Amino acid sequence: MAAPNVLTEAKNTIMPAMTAALERLSPEIRRVIDYHMGWRDVDGRPVERRGSKSIRPALALLSAQAAGGDPQEAVPGAIAVEFINNWAFLIDDVMDGDSFRRQRETAWVVFGEGQAICASAALLNLGQQILLESASPNRVAALTLVLQTVERMLVGQTLDMTFEERSDVSIDESLVMTRSKTASLMRCACSIGAVLVGGPPATIDLLGEFGECVGVAFQARDDILGVWGFPPQTGGRPRGFDVRARKGTLPIVVGLQAGGTVGAELRTLRDKPELTDDDLDHSIRLIEQAGGLAWTRDLARNSVDRALKLIRELPEEIHSPLATLAALGQPDDVQTEPGHAASSTGR
Amino acid sequence: MAAPNVLTEAKNTIMPAMTAALERLSPEIRRVIDYHMGWRDVDGRPVERRGSKSIRPALALLSAQAAGGDPQEAVPGAIAVEFINNWAFLIDDVMDGDSFRRQRETAWVVFGEGQAICASAALLNLGQQILLESASPNRVAALTLVLQTVERMLVGQTLDMTFEERSDVSIDESLVMTRSKTASLMRCACSIGAVLVGGPPATIDLLGEFGECVGVAFQARDDILGVWGFPPQTGGRPRGFDVRARKGTLPIVVGLQAGGTVGAELRTLRDKPELTDDDLDHSIRLIEQAGGLAWTRDLARNSVDRALKLIRELPEEIHSPLATLAALGQPDDVQTEPGHAASSTGR
Repeated sequence: MAAPNVLTEAKNTIMPAMTAALERLSPEIRRVIDYHMGWRDVDGRPVERRGSKSIRPALALLSAQAAGGDPQEAVPGAIAVEFINNWAFLIDDVMDGDSFRRQRETAWVVFGEGQAICASAALLNLGQQILLESASPNRVAALTLVLQTVERMLVGQTLDMTFEERSDVSIDESLVMTRSKTASLMRCACSIGAVLVGGPPATIDLLGEFGECVGVAFQARDDILGVWGFPPQTGGRPRGFDVRARKGTLPIVVGLQAGGTVGAELRTLRDKPELTDDDLDHSIRLIEQAGGLAWTRDLARNSVDRALKLIRELPEEIHSPLATLAALGQPDDVQTEPGHAASSTGR
Repeated sequence: MAAPNVLTEAKNTIMPAMTAALERLSPEIRRVIDYHMGWRDVDGRPVERRGSKSIRPALALLSAQAAGGDPQEAVPGAIAVEFINNWAFLIDDVMDGDSFRRQRETAWVVFGEGQAICASAALLNLGQQILLESASPNRVAALTLVLQTVERMLVGQTLDMTFEERSDVSIDESLVMTRSKTASLMRCACSIGAVLVGGPPATIDLLGEFGECVGVAFQARDDILGVWGFPPQTGGRPRGFDVRARKGTLPIVVGLQAGGTVGAELRTLRDKPELTDDDLDHSIRLIEQAGGLAWTRDLARNSVDRALKLIRELPEEIHSPLATLAALGQPDDVQTEPGHAASSTGR
């Protein structure tokens, strides 16, 4: 599937400044980042670039345009959100013990946990330094937004881990996790451009709200993949990955909260130290019976719908690219059964 | 040994603002921080406060005074450096697999690696947020200094890990690691107060240089402890800890670089997958023969001397407290043999 033009354009816009920024890293840190970004192999040899789709940088550039400003002024913000996103990927992989991302071994597997942790922190720090290269009020406001975002992401990440030890996570709690962990960065990406061009507060808020909706949709879609997804849509994760990892994601929590035998059986299975393949299949069926798939799919669709409504208040030339990016949160192409895309089961 | 007054005063000065700042953390993150700081036990019950000696906050407050400013204006900087120091402790313990700090189990042992990593990042982020609560030019300059410091610390930490895989680390490389990993934060602590009160650049530089010297002394002292130190001076680490961990600290590198059989034997021992107790004792003796202890002790002493010379150019009322803190980098009280303090071996 070809990337939408708006993503290719964003990548081209930020790449020179991003490459220059990464030059500041020490060689030892740089090799971890270059590998993680999908630019080089373990031995430092250039590879055909895969890696990030640049959704968040694209949103940051569009955000500046939406506020009537020059997207070039948003480039430091676009790079900062891209770095934050990859910081989160790097430490998530360590914390979750994930061995694969984007069809490759994760950085901690290749370089060790410590190297991955340091490289991730260096990337986050570099994004903040780029914003503060100029100390204008807009830059300082953008950095304040970034610090708030990192704060929320860490709250979400911490909840994520805490939920693994609980079988009584409520839907509201899971939604807080989703908003903190994922929607916060999408909010940041969608508003930081407007902040950097000094846009009106009402536009910044509206863009932030748009981002929050898109972020919820993205996470809901990802949660569906975490239970029903097959490689390669999951980047290499096996079906039922989040169930085995005892995650408290939205569809799983809808299942755990179900009344009667469905919820009770699910909670019993969750408390087992190890799930057999049959246990896993049974758990997934129970989550479906509880409505976990339908509920999460509806949440994603409704969140995208709300995002699309919000952009009507923005300049018209921005509607189409923002709508294209918001639509990436749609869960309809997620394949939930071997050979069957979810969209074919009707909407 | 009672803490010098200047440390107690600093702790009292920053505690209200630091406590207020920590209130912003989520309960899940807070419990990890409160445990790590030595304020609460695993179950959240208050314990007799041990924890940090507040050396870096004290230096930050004195730094403001040294530049002729009000130490109160340096409180956000003092808290930021205290948080950075604890961020580094938390992730160092994860990366080095250390089980004990300040005579207690480390946070990652108690709460898991993921919780410790997130809590550490949240603490670092909080320190940055406190600085940016006001967006005055001095605050922005202080945050710029903090970001540079974190950059250097991560370079040093990464080198530290890289050195564990090498037996050919040079003394210069080890010094770069020492400066990056440790002296950078001491430089930040010693200059951030002056930055926050808008002190003259020459004073800021002089204080930074003072801090760099103190930092080198502190790390050299710590490196001695890492080879020769006994609990409780090491906070619970066994003698020879850094040798077993294949660290590239200063005394060890002096040993590895030694000519003749001493260096060769040391490199051979270092390449063994596992050291017996005899191997360890032999390694330590070889490092001594190579002059690793004397060299590192001299470095610490000379660095403190240089720091003491630098403060002569500062206002007189600041000499005594700065000298007291610099002297904490002296290695003379480090016990290098059971029952024998190093100072008793003469200077």
